[in-house]
Amino acid sequence: MAFLDELPRVSTSAEDLAAVATDRSGTVPDGLPLAVVRASTVDDVRTALRLAHEHGVPVVPRGAGTGLAGGAVAGPGTVVLDLSGLDRIVEIDDVDELAVVEPGVITADLDRAAAEFGLRYAPDPASAAISTIGGNIATNAGGMRCVKYGVTREAVLGLDVVLADGRLISTDRRTVKGVAGLDLTALFVGSEGTLGVVVGATLRLRPLPAHTFTAVAAFDSVRAAATACTELARTRRDPSLLELLDGATLGVIDRAQGTDYAARGRALVIAQADGAAAESEIAAIAGVLGKEATWTEQAVDPAASERLLFARRMALPSIERFGRALIEDICVPRSRLADAFQGIEEIASRHGVGIYSFAHAGDGNLHPIIGYDRMSDAVQRAGDDLFALALDLGGTVTGEHGIGLLKRDWLAREAGQDVLDVQNSLKAALDPRGILNPGKAF
Amino acid sequence: MAFLDELPRVSTSAEDLAAVATDRSGTVPDGLPLAVVRASTVDDVRTALRLAHEHGVPVVPRGAGTGLAGGAVAGPGTVVLDLSGLDRIVEIDDVDELAVVEPGVITADLDRAAAEFGLRYAPDPASAAISTIGGNIATNAGGMRCVKYGVTREAVLGLDVVLADGRLISTDRRTVKGVAGLDLTALFVGSEGTLGVVVGATLRLRPLPAHTFTAVAAFDSVRAAATACTELARTRRDPSLLELLDGATLGVIDRAQGTDYAARGRALVIAQADGAAAESEIAAIAGVLGKEATWTEQAVDPAASERLLFARRMALPSIERFGRALIEDICVPRSRLADAFQGIEEIASRHGVGIYSFAHAGDGNLHPIIGYDRMSDAVQRAGDDLFALALDLGGTVTGEHGIGLLKRDWLAREAGQDVLDVQNSLKAALDPRGILNPGKAF
Repeated sequence: MAFLDELPRVSTSAEDLAAVATDRSGTVPDGLPLAVVRASTVDDVRTALRLAHEHGVPVVPRGAGTGLAGGAVAGPGTVVLDLSGLDRIVEIDDVDELAVVEPGVITADLDRAAAEFGLRYAPDPASAAISTIGGNIATNAGGMRCVKYGVTREAVLGLDVVLADGRLISTDRRTVKGVAGLDLTALFVGSEGTLGVVVGATLRLRPLPAHTFTAVAAFDSVRAAATACTELARTRRDPSLLELLDGATLGVIDRAQGTDYAARGRALVIAQADGAAAESEIAAIAGVLGKEATWTEQAVDPAASERLLFARRMALPSIERFGRALIEDICVPRSRLADAFQGIEEIASRHGVGIYSFAHAGDGNLHPIIGYDRMSDAVQRAGDDLFALALDLGGTVTGEHGIGLLKRDWLAREAGQDVLDVQNSLKAALDPRGILNPGKAF
Repeated sequence: MAFLDELPRVSTSAEDLAAVATDRSGTVPDGLPLAVVRASTVDDVRTALRLAHEHGVPVVPRGAGTGLAGGAVAGPGTVVLDLSGLDRIVEIDDVDELAVVEPGVITADLDRAAAEFGLRYAPDPASAAISTIGGNIATNAGGMRCVKYGVTREAVLGLDVVLADGRLISTDRRTVKGVAGLDLTALFVGSEGTLGVVVGATLRLRPLPAHTFTAVAAFDSVRAAATACTELARTRRDPSLLELLDGATLGVIDRAQGTDYAARGRALVIAQADGAAAESEIAAIAGVLGKEATWTEQAVDPAASERLLFARRMALPSIERFGRALIEDICVPRSRLADAFQGIEEIASRHGVGIYSFAHAGDGNLHPIIGYDRMSDAVQRAGDDLFALALDLGGTVTGEHGIGLLKRDWLAREAGQDVLDVQNSLKAALDPRGILNPGKAF
């Protein structure tokens, strides 16, 4: 297609195309995209979209490609718009507690830059060291700190967005509050590149807490551990992190890392409290967890805290060391956490598959990981049953990873046809030719 | 019009119509609406909208009519849809920390009901005792607690919405997190009844803090007071309330209430801290404020705290005792707070009008109140200059009251034509016949 030559910073080499055709979902499209545009300015993005719009060619925006739901998978006939080169931290304002960034900034890099001002960027997806802010905004990414500080949407004040036809709009705001007109910012957050391409973001930063204390407790069943987390909610404590790992996960961590977590119990809960009340909060949290625990430990300094968090951080790498992993992301009301773990165990046993489960327990957000060597019907049916379980418990099929390519059928079941119709009508209003990441998100 | 007779629970009596024709903006439309539907079920709302859609008749949704921007003003040719009769608190779940309510519930009633479970509904607009949750959602209402707990949007998990054609959709969610599809919930919040009619809401509740401590400090100038508030941000303290009153406001409170605040200084800052760290936080906050203060006081029990908050609560009633009040609602970056107060003083002096100013200082959200007996050109020009000031300082023309009828011209200046075009295209997608609160919000 002749128009490909008009694209800025374009490559059509097979090697370059193969490098941007998929993401961490592992989905392999049945052919390479047409071209990749490696944007390094906003004008590159505008030009690429204007041309794609004129020619009706689908565009797949892309950050670091760390998404787990296939949102950045680019099949034949598409142009990949790689935004990782737009990677400047433009400004950090330490009085207004905000950062102005380009979308290709690595999440952890922003957090580190903010730390020099006694601030931090609160959302911390597990991919923070390799994912971009733009990708985080596209999926409304979560993480371990969300239980206290909220998800990405709560951290986004305003956006610069290139629309499907190449127009650049700004919903920018440097104020904490603002209710002028429809909340376009919130609409773009989590829209997975289907409504516009984010080329700039004003982000809220939070004070870096002076203290962070950690407590862990082991339990003799995952139900006991989940019940303790629910009890924590009932006692109105304020953890800044609350993670739960089941027995299968502890076992695989031990095998991979040479640790002995499984000897301490069949489930582990890791809690943190931060800020001015950290010391009294962690004592209260440890008190609640300790009631039914088989083992407890606390840490007051960063190194010891990091050691107690080690199990959680090593969970996924340990699982992936012994085979492939289908990473799920269901979210249930916190009161149903124990029921969710029980349902997952039943699904594993029914289909004869191994499922390792850990959870952002404070948010009711579970990551059941199906381990497998070769994809099979049993693995796929187990995956479907996990989504059905989430809906049965009043939850959602995705707490923080997004719908992407992989969960569209389930979104229809969760949301219903009228809601889908509304989403499609909004999409048509903003992208009448349907060129922005078609077939994704909804 | 014959279709009026088909409307459920309808009245066309002049007395009933006069009672619902305007809101607290004081805007008087040039004639009465056609009819008022006093909905008491969701089906009433669906039927009314279906009929209005068929006949192309504009509908003005209405809660308690406490809005200050004219969002509920209903002129000739419109049907008012009064939702105040949908007033049930359906459920409070004290483990999942959420409430399910109908839109006509009075905000303070929900807060009281939540308190029985050790919880609270955090958003607290000054109108909380008389405004409805539905109205709060329509304007994305703020309040004094927002500085720590966020605005209404942060408290809304899901909504039941009747669309323009009478279809009922639910964006409902009982989980803390969820990223399935576009964030319709956030789009409806703050849309001022232009995209759909909220008939149910699932709201996030927060733990009721065990302690709330209060500190006040007087300063010899409003600039010194504003600078102290900015300094507080720089020291990374975490106030749960941070209010600032200028000298004119202190004077009018003294005249109306017989107090002697003006004798203590030319500006007053009131701060609270709550939660487990309340005691150490308020000590640190008082320390920062105290550096340049002419007078300070602290309170540790609820009665004394309430006494210290008295000035703030009496500010608007005191002003209104001596005349009419044009209540503005600009928001600037926190770092520009002192500049905003100085700009307001210059505007007052330039136009020869009296402006009383107080602010949710922690959010940079100022309420300059122009006192007047008869509306004049000078009052209107001063109002316009206040909006211009907000934009000059990188702020917004409305922090928490909304655009309504009164600020539409200024929204165009703040947002720009491309953003307005996007808003209008979303409106057209959801309300193709344009019957929902036309001429409001954007």
